[in-house]
Amino acid sequence: MPKIKAVFFDVDDTLYDSTLQAETARKNAIKAMIGAGLSLGEQEAMKSLKHIVKKFGSNYPRHFHELLKESGHDNNPHIIAAGLVAYHNTKLTYLVPFRDTVPTLLSLRDRNYKLGVITNGLAVKQWEKLIRLGVQHVFDVVIISKETGLKKPDPEIFRLALKEIGCNPGEAAMLGDRVDRDIAGANEVGMLTVQLMKGRRRNPPKEPKEEPDYVVPDLRDILDILEKEG
Amino acid sequence: MPKIKAVFFDVDDTLYDSTLQAETARKNAIKAMIGAGLSLGEQEAMKSLKHIVKKFGSNYPRHFHELLKESGHDNNPHIIAAGLVAYHNTKLTYLVPFRDTVPTLLSLRDRNYKLGVITNGLAVKQWEKLIRLGVQHVFDVVIISKETGLKKPDPEIFRLALKEIGCNPGEAAMLGDRVDRDIAGANEVGMLTVQLMKGRRRNPPKEPKEEPDYVVPDLRDILDILEKEG
Repeated sequence: MPKIKAVFFDVDDTLYDSTLQAETARKNAIKAMIGAGLSLGEQEAMKSLKHIVKKFGSNYPRHFHELLKESGHDNNPHIIAAGLVAYHNTKLTYLVPFRDTVPTLLSLRDRNYKLGVITNGLAVKQWEKLIRLGVQHVFDVVIISKETGLKKPDPEIFRLALKEIGCNPGEAAMLGDRVDRDIAGANEVGMLTVQLMKGRRRNPPKEPKEEPDYVVPDLRDILDILEKEG
Repeated sequence: MPKIKAVFFDVDDTLYDSTLQAETARKNAIKAMIGAGLSLGEQEAMKSLKHIVKKFGSNYPRHFHELLKESGHDNNPHIIAAGLVAYHNTKLTYLVPFRDTVPTLLSLRDRNYKLGVITNGLAVKQWEKLIRLGVQHVFDVVIISKETGLKKPDPEIFRLALKEIGCNPGEAAMLGDRVDRDIAGANEVGMLTVQLMKGRRRNPPKEPKEEPDYVVPDLRDILDILEKEG
């Protein structure tokens, strides 16, 4: 196997704990909304909110308006604002890298690997995450689905990333938490694939061909893998 | 003159320095965008941004997209995200009450005045400000233009506030920075009017009838005025 020259990363649940962030932000928002007068129990409200996020998508800007509506409340901007303040404060507080994220990225740079991001999401929103995580200058290439019109697991988004970083598939690794998005597409183009067991670790592989080459608990394990792969 | 029983406040440039906040947030956003690759001078970019805010309104969510467009840049989510992160961080940092805001509100409550807010803006956005300023529980009545369909200086928004707080016009004072919005309408309904010389202090009175009863440099001066008015 040829020497790996470039390592690509997913963002959410790979560079930071977006599952914990989202869950905690929603819990704190619900508590604040109840504190401001929402007449629902915490569990009932959480269940309803999760349903709304699923129905309208995570980037829909009026989840809390919908929560009031679906629970038969009159529109109440005080309650919505209380939820938004708690939600945004929590999102910022939890938007920090896993403790091994930055040391691992720096070690990879020290070893002359090219580094890239391949992420599904809105371009400005994903860049805001990289900036707040403090890693925006570390990557040579950043590929975001909404900007390119391609989306993981489409192999074309991986081919685009490889072209931009200047590598053949066999010279690059893809590291992410989701088999269905990160691993499946990267396997198809022939990259080395590493699944990180962070976040929800949901979406188990449906077919043997979607199995990652490696499964690791932490980002720093990529260093050993690359040493082994030569 | 009958005894004053209720005191109403504007929010922006009355409870906190929204002019300093907005100017500093824009400056820091421009610096961050230039740092991320925007090829404009700081002054040129500030001028262009001010023009865009004026053209599209302050609540338009794509000022930085427009800035890139108007200066002939390609769309660049990294530059826009850098601006947004700096802008929002600065907005939060500067969203603090004037140093006499909370002590004055508490003194008024101690003296059994009813307290209210009459503000122009989006309902959720204005509530978010009250919450982040930490004064959301201090007010008996909060009237926001977009929620009521009325807007300062329309005398009807002042009449609605008076009705909700349970006072006649002669029993209430209105305190705000803008003669054209806060003072003009409150004068028309017959409230005691106090202009606070904060923020831009622009929009001087156009007619003698729009003159405030008092002009004061600080919020705490309302305490002396109320003592004098009985």
